Formats: sequence, structure tokens, C-alpha cells
Amino acid sequence: MTSPTVADVGEQGVLAQILPLLPTGEGVTLGPGDDAAVIDWPHGTLVTTCDLMIEGPDFRRNWSTGFDVGWKAMASNLADVAAMGATPRGVVIGLAVPDQVGVSAVADIARGVAEGLAQMAPGCGVWGGDLSESDQVMISVTVIGDLEGRAAITRQGASVGDVVAVGGVLGQSSRGLSILLEAGEDAEAISGLLGFPEVIAHLRPTPPLHLGIDAARGGATAMMDISDGLLLDAARMARASRVAIDLHSAAVVDDHALSGGEDHSLLACFPPGVELPPGFLVIGQVVEPGEAAGLVTVDGVVPAGSGGWDPYRRGNK
Amino acid sequence: MTSPTVADVGEQGVLAQILPLLPTGEGVTLGPGDDAAVIDWPHGTLVTTCDLMIEGPDFRRNWSTGFDVGWKAMASNLADVAAMGATPRGVVIGLAVPDQVGVSAVADIARGVAEGLAQMAPGCGVWGGDLSESDQVMISVTVIGDLEGRAAITRQGASVGDVVAVGGVLGQSSRGLSILLEAGEDAEAISGLLGFPEVIAHLRPTPPLHLGIDAARGGATAMMDISDGLLLDAARMARASRVAIDLHSAAVVDDHALSGGEDHSLLACFPPGVELPPGFLVIGQVVEPGEAAGLVTVDGVVPAGSGGWDPYRRGNK
Repeated sequence: MTSPTVADVGEQGVLAQILPLLPTGEGVTLGPGDDAAVIDWPHGTLVTTCDLMIEGPDFRRNWSTGFDVGWKAMASNLADVAAMGATPRGVVIGLAVPDQVGVSAVADIARGVAEGLAQMAPGCGVWGGDLSESDQVMISVTVIGDLEGRAAITRQGASVGDVVAVGGVLGQSSRGLSILLEAGEDAEAISGLLGFPEVIAHLRPTPPLHLGIDAARGGATAMMDISDGLLLDAARMARASRVAIDLHSAAVVDDHALSGGEDHSLLACFPPGVELPPGFLVIGQVVEPGEAAGLVTVDGVVPAGSGGWDPYRRGNK
Repeated sequence: MTSPTVADVGEQGVLAQILPLLPTGEGVTLGPGDDAAVIDWPHGTLVTTCDLMIEGPDFRRNWSTGFDVGWKAMASNLADVAAMGATPRGVVIGLAVPDQVGVSAVADIARGVAEGLAQMAPGCGVWGGDLSESDQVMISVTVIGDLEGRAAITRQGASVGDVVAVGGVLGQSSRGLSILLEAGEDAEAISGLLGFPEVIAHLRPTPPLHLGIDAARGGATAMMDISDGLLLDAARMARASRVAIDLHSAAVVDDHALSGGEDHSLLACFPPGVELPPGFLVIGQVVEPGEAAGLVTVDGVVPAGSGGWDPYRRGNK
């Protein structure tokens, strides 16, 4: 007996299975089921962002379970809100799958969404979404977060003399990706790797997102999440702040730490002398830009370049 | 000389072309470019919803230009927020296209988004988004709207005796779809049809969304947008309100009016005796449900059924 597909049960059948799995969140006057959800909004400022995950460029079904896909979609999106110093309040999810995908696989995505929210943003609910049909699995997530009266921490506020710190791992997801790539298409080899901590970090990254609020309260001058690699993202922050950043080689243990993406750790700058919130580790300092605002060096030396991630230029990397 | 593709110019190149085309909207402290946008939120309640449009099930590139796709994505999403009685404030857009799509086609989508917003929700901005690569063009839109102190108009508030009214056309998009389907794959035949009002209504529906706020102010008891056909959507409203709805045959001029989707007109109920806001037309009344809450009749008779739209069951229709 095979498991029913989404085509067998239809949209209402899929919703009947996944809605009970998802958290409602707080302050929700009206949840999924009407034209739109209705949410109490007490604090006067919101932040919002969205991120797509597409089968192929962003994940493979022979590596990632549905649970992993749902979890990772939460990590990458929640990190952007946490990196503003905001508390994620709710997500809105668009999911498209081929019509022969099993309902159980969709429920597995929903479980990954729910568990990812519970671990990385407790209290954040699923406010709505849309289901559709496509050739590739695609998940689109919009997060809405509340600054709760705090000022947003942007990429633009770093000053010369600030310390540069990171909350979370560097390069762990990229190490896991390398391990998976080495296994090629061999299903047995892949399944033997799924317990490795680096592989888990790639499939289900768990950035310490509560540190975003700690950083905002602790005086962070600039913050972002590291999605495309430390080198590239630090350069973006340095450019936005019109400074340069010098990283300590001791903090950049390998190429993965320097250029690996998808850890979604928090990169933050703090004024010199401020006590860092527990969980942040100093990895460099903000320095004079000279003629090159946006420059990132390691112990004063420009590292061998990395192109970083571009969705349309994967072949060029 | 061929137009550059998104792969030629990369993500930043695409953004450089499309961001200047898009409206910022009001109350935006920080727009696209950081981890998330930051928005002033004065009124204390927000509504949000999302909708996917996927090449194939939702549109075809030989019928729809990029402009049409961007416009229609706005219409379908803005309608859900308007149908709550809310003012659309901002949209967050995920766009995935094959890497050989021209940059000009992506700019065309952005122009359709901008023009759709200007026509249907002036003041509503693009707060952010994400670009990715996929085999099919896919656009995911999340809208965030402000109730501005009004109560949300849900599907649940219709009472026996209410009049049922519609703001906007009935069946026009479906008539246009039929015309396009008759033309088959013949490019010349298709291009000869693009000026027909019904075809325009299918490719670029323009529901009168300002009527949503008028309805909320005018005492509407229940409201929704008609995306899947009057019969199916009226049944949803009747079921949510635990009533039945009887439509006047004079208002339902053909099968398109009864079962055609994608007009995104507003279906609203008003207490008897209330003066309807200009733009709404009476098409029926709310009646006792008897044993069948959710029943929809035409002049008291159950019409020959329509399954309505299900993304996973297109083959069964």
C-alpha cells in the first residue's frame, strides 16, 4: 500500500493534515482559513524579509528529508529577523510541490517548520500560506518580526575601533556540504553520513538566534547573519558602514570558516570596551578603510578571494 | 545583439535594474538591502496573507508577458487583504526564474508589480524580496495590510436576511481564459486576442479593491474575494457563517459568472436596509441553512456543480 499523494487528497486534505502540526503563535486574532490572518501588533515597528528555497540550487531530496527542508527554511529566514535585533513573531509560507509527492512528505516539511520554530524562535507562529503545484519543490517564507521598542540594528553602524564578534559556528555547514558532495549519488554512503555533526549543521542549521536580541540590548552597532560566507558578508557590512574589517586568523581556522555559507550565525560589531553578551566570540576589529571601504583582511592581509553565492551564477564559482 | 540574461548580470545586476522601478511605500524606515525592512506600524493590528503563482498551473509565458505576471500577482494578493477591509501597506516578493531568462523580462515583471500596485493599492510599497533560480518562473507574494482601527471583515459574519453583493466583474477572467484556450498554441492567433476586454481581464485583472474599505466602513458583515468562482467561494462564506446563500439568476448570466475564477471581485454581505457603497451590486441574499449550512442556490435551485479550483487536482476538473 503506497502513501497517498497530494493529488489523491487535494488541497483541503493536505491542509487538514498539516495545520494541526503548526504553531499558532501569540497575538493571533484570526489564523489560517480566511482571506488573511489578523494579528495584534502592539509595538509600532515591524521588520519583514523573505527567502526562497528551491530544490536543486538550495537542497536535494536525496540529502534532505522534508523535515530538514522545513527546518532549514526557518533557520535562514528567522536569522534575517534576529539579525535586526527583532523577535520573530510569525511566518507566512508558500509551498509548491509536484502533485505526486506524498502527503506524508508535506507533513514532514510542516513538522520541520514547527520544530525549527520551537527551537529557534519559540512563540513565533505560522500565520498563513499557500499551496501550489510545481515541478521542483519550492518553499517561500516571509517572516514578520517585532522590534519591541528597540532600534533596528542594521549593517551600517559599525565604527572604527569596534570589535567584530560572531554568535554561532563558522564554516560548519560548508564542511557538511563538502562531506555530502564527496559521497556523490551513492544512497548508502549518504545515509552513513547523516549523523555527522557537520552534515547535521548543513541540513538543519541551528544558529543561536536569541543572541540577536542580546546583541541589540548589549549595544551592538551593526549586525547581520552570515548566509553567504564570512568574507563576503563581512565585506557587505564594512561597505555599508564605510569601514574596513580585519579578522583574526585564529578565528578563521579554514577556508570553510572564511567562505562557507549557510551557517546563519550572527556577525555583530560592538563598541570597544563593551562586555559582549555571552555566546559572542571576538573574531576581528573594525579598522580605517583607507581607500577601500568594504575591504576585509585577515591579520592585515587580503585573503585569496571567494566569489560567494549568486543564485544566477552557480556555474562560475 | 541579444538581451543579457540574469545569469549574465547576476543577482546584484538584476537588483540594480529592478529596485528603481518599485515603489517604496509609506512609513518605511529601512527598505531593501539589509537583512530585513523596517516599517512604522501605527495602528495596532495587521493582516497578512500569501499567494504563489507558478508557470504552468497559474500562467503561461506564451499568453502572459512579464508585466502581466507581475500585475496579476498583485491583484490576487492585494484582493485578499482588501477583502478583510484592510489597506494593503507593503508586499514582500520571492521571484525564481530560469537562469537564461532575460534581465528585461524580470524588469518587465517589476513594472507590472509597480503598475498593479499604483492602480489597485496606491501607497503600498515593495518592502523586500528574494531572487532565486528555478526551472519554472515562480512568484511568491506576501502582503501586509493595516486595518487602521477597523474590525476585520471575515467570512463568518453573514446573517439570515443579509443582502449578498459583489464589487467587480463576475466571470470576465474565465471568459478570457476560454478565448485563449480556443486559440491553442498558435502564436499569431493568440496575439490577435490580447486586446479583447475579457482576455485583458484574465491576464491583468483589476478588481476595484478600494471597495473593500468602503464595505468595511459601510457595515459589511462578511467579505471575501472571489478567486475560485462565485459558487465555490459563496459556499465557503455560507459554510463559515453557518447559513445558506440564494443567488439571483439575473446576476449570474452564464457559467463563467457562476464558476469562473480569478476575477478577485469582492463578495460581501450587508444587513438588510443598509445603503450599499457605490460599486456594489446585489446578487442574492442570505437565507436559512435548513439542514445544509454552506448551501448555495440560484433562485432556490441547486445549480449543476462545479468542483472549483484545486492546485493538486487540475486533471479532475
